[in-house]
Amino acid sequence: MTQVRDTKQRLLDTARELFYARSYEDVGVQEICREAGVKKGSFYHFFPSKRDLTVAMLDESWIQFRDMLLNDVFVRDIPPVQRILRLLDMQYRLHSEAKAKTGHVSGCPFGNLAGEMSTRDEVIRERVKRVFRDLEVPIRDVLEEAAAAGDLPELDSRATACAMVAYLEGLSLMAKTHNDPDIVKQLGPAILKLIVLPGEG
Amino acid sequence: MTQVRDTKQRLLDTARELFYARSYEDVGVQEICREAGVKKGSFYHFFPSKRDLTVAMLDESWIQFRDMLLNDVFVRDIPPVQRILRLLDMQYRLHSEAKAKTGHVSGCPFGNLAGEMSTRDEVIRERVKRVFRDLEVPIRDVLEEAAAAGDLPELDSRATACAMVAYLEGLSLMAKTHNDPDIVKQLGPAILKLIVLPGEG
Repeated sequence: MTQVRDTKQRLLDTARELFYARSYEDVGVQEICREAGVKKGSFYHFFPSKRDLTVAMLDESWIQFRDMLLNDVFVRDIPPVQRILRLLDMQYRLHSEAKAKTGHVSGCPFGNLAGEMSTRDEVIRERVKRVFRDLEVPIRDVLEEAAAAGDLPELDSRATACAMVAYLEGLSLMAKTHNDPDIVKQLGPAILKLIVLPGEG
Repeated sequence: MTQVRDTKQRLLDTARELFYARSYEDVGVQEICREAGVKKGSFYHFFPSKRDLTVAMLDESWIQFRDMLLNDVFVRDIPPVQRILRLLDMQYRLHSEAKAKTGHVSGCPFGNLAGEMSTRDEVIRERVKRVFRDLEVPIRDVLEEAAAAGDLPELDSRATACAMVAYLEGLSLMAKTHNDPDIVKQLGPAILKLIVLPGEG
């Protein structure tokens, strides 16, 4: 069982890394198997297709990201507004690490797949869409806590969280295009101004 | 000469449409030639590679977009702040037209290429980066005019324009992922809050 889990996990980890460094279309099943040291027959034992692997990878990536967000970033012993700035610190750190490792800021793994695949694969599009929706939930909670504490005005927390996710994705794309994590550092704090008031959204 | 120009233009138009509807990697030279009704030898007469075609297409797309922006959107007889909202109207209209035509919101043609290719092709990355920088210029002008008229506070026009481009790109990616142009309509006007004050950027 351990070996089976290892093989499956190696395929997921390898695909995640290759897709993130390059693109979905540029990386085939054959290369994923070669890099993971797994036979092609084994791949199809675990995943009927590259798309199925990708959906499993998205499920796993979202859980990892959410756990990091809830356990390390949105920690409850700092004021809610500061937690949002910590999310930007994490974004900056992830871009900086990618650049140090590969020479390239690689953007957001979810946004990359959405941008490349949304017109071509409804299953992948719907899965990334759900990630973005799920990411809005903890942001909404933080915004509502900040508004209740008087640190932010009364706001439309749903629309504000949605606008903030859009801005985070835009910043990741800009950092990738400029190959410069500092874009997140310079422009990130402006996210706190993106407050949609009730009736505006 | 006319026929030569027509052939080259057909290749550019076909590539633009196919890349936008799908992705860069998913569309090969052979398909571009077939769809354009052009022989492969002719392609290589005009463009040494798919990348060269893409850079020429980006040059042309930027000029078309800039002309539309300056002549139809940022018209000087409406107040500067309203011009920025008109840019969002244009974004909404382009997404709606793409969806009506193909069933899919296709995002931003520049952002799509940046997201897919920035880690893999420095020439394409640098070209799209320049498009984003060039797009900041007319936005800066509008912001400075609005600040001079007292319609916006004194601001860091460079950083604000950069933040606004990031938000526009994030909105396009969200509209594409949700396959819903209304995201731009709902969340677009919040762009006017993304003002970076002097010393903040």
